[in-house]
Amino acid sequence: MILPTILLVRPQLVENIGAVARAMLNCEVTELRLVAPRDGWPKGQGFTPTEAEIPAMPDWIAERLTAAASGADEILKRARIFPSLAAAVADLQMVYATTARDHAMVKPWSTPRAAAAAAVEKTARAERVGFLFGPERTGLTHEDMVHAQGAIAIPANPAFSSFNLAQAVLLLCYEWHVATKPAPAERLPESPLATQAEMDGLLQRLEAALTAKGFFTTEAMRPTMARNIRHTLQRAAMTEQEVRTWHGIISALLKKDEA
Amino acid sequence: MILPTILLVRPQLVENIGAVARAMLNCEVTELRLVAPRDGWPKGQGFTPTEAEIPAMPDWIAERLTAAASGADEILKRARIFPSLAAAVADLQMVYATTARDHAMVKPWSTPRAAAAAAVEKTARAERVGFLFGPERTGLTHEDMVHAQGAIAIPANPAFSSFNLAQAVLLLCYEWHVATKPAPAERLPESPLATQAEMDGLLQRLEAALTAKGFFTTEAMRPTMARNIRHTLQRAAMTEQEVRTWHGIISALLKKDEA
Repeated sequence: MILPTILLVRPQLVENIGAVARAMLNCEVTELRLVAPRDGWPKGQGFTPTEAEIPAMPDWIAERLTAAASGADEILKRARIFPSLAAAVADLQMVYATTARDHAMVKPWSTPRAAAAAAVEKTARAERVGFLFGPERTGLTHEDMVHAQGAIAIPANPAFSSFNLAQAVLLLCYEWHVATKPAPAERLPESPLATQAEMDGLLQRLEAALTAKGFFTTEAMRPTMARNIRHTLQRAAMTEQEVRTWHGIISALLKKDEA
Repeated sequence: MILPTILLVRPQLVENIGAVARAMLNCEVTELRLVAPRDGWPKGQGFTPTEAEIPAMPDWIAERLTAAASGADEILKRARIFPSLAAAVADLQMVYATTARDHAMVKPWSTPRAAAAAAVEKTARAERVGFLFGPERTGLTHEDMVHAQGAIAIPANPAFSSFNLAQAVLLLCYEWHVATKPAPAERLPESPLATQAEMDGLLQRLEAALTAKGFFTTEAMRPTMARNIRHTLQRAAMTEQEVRTWHGIISALLKKDEA
């Protein structure tokens, strides 16, 4: 499968770059590009596909980068570092810009969910898709936006709409991941679910025991009360093991006290 | 509207608590509870609804907390601090635990999206819903899980499934926010979209100019080529302003060079 590319434009804080790498790997998105990262890039990591010189990141900053990635080093090692946004998007066919600012421009706007769905279709046709994210302080500039064909606005509190960089990247990667994967099973039981016959056996035994103990004060109330008890236990969607446990509970409660 | 409550169980790093506050406010989720935060809580902030004593957070740690919240101070100021998980969930009616661990228990598992949809229904019926998140290093324990009626598994890379605490909280808050808000308009044009008549005027003028300049080498090819040009511009979904600009472009290209 062709994966979308995450592009960080002039990122400032290595803590955020590391957190981006972790979020990407969490969501199985592995293609990271950086455009002129403020603190350079660790020597010997990543690729610089153009002739341009990328400054070496000082070791003490590189250590913070690695710590923030929390084990997602493979994303950083295969990252591609570019001097300019134009160079970074040169081989892409559909570029979405993630921005909260109201740029004086007209582009189709989408939600992360709609953009992820579109990206899944495009990559299935072997088209190369990229998602742009701007610098922490300012976001993408008008000049950056020219390189995008579509814009993505993350639904946000209008009074507090600025997402942390890694949080914004996570939301796009998460939507991509959810759009590409079948939903996981709703339930992963330790033990198989009980059959209706097993449930019936338990419920009949309980009802018989309650009858013997005089729980149903009138015969007229009995069907309604019995039905309500059944509803409660049915809603719990019990496993075979739980049915056995409840048989044990009934036995224990019925047991005569030892003298 | 009744909002869901975010509960952080024994959170360790104030950087994560601050980032949680920011992510919550981004998504208009404002109810935060903390269970026995490792470094205590800033004196004079938040509420301790029980008699228990919560240790005061040292000032230098409180500063890191505020910095990480990036302006989402109101979430921290109204947070409620509890000594135990049992006390923190006491008034809630539906508690979901977010966990990647395979607990030896059987609970209904859902995705964040399904849980958010269910939470929207429940809060609409005035039921109080909470989402539990465990400590960074270990996640929720078996004992913690007993306080939850449902479990949430975030779809993740099976080989790298541990999300940062604030990232996990963001995904739940984001799904809640998307589930409660109507999707934003697909497009926010600066200028109104052009009518089809305006598009037609532009396309006819372009076609006439191209005919005059001998662009269509054979009359037989003309309908197909003209149609393709129309398709390109139609796909761009131009605004009125853009149509005027393109009229200007045609005029400029047709202009005789000044001698």
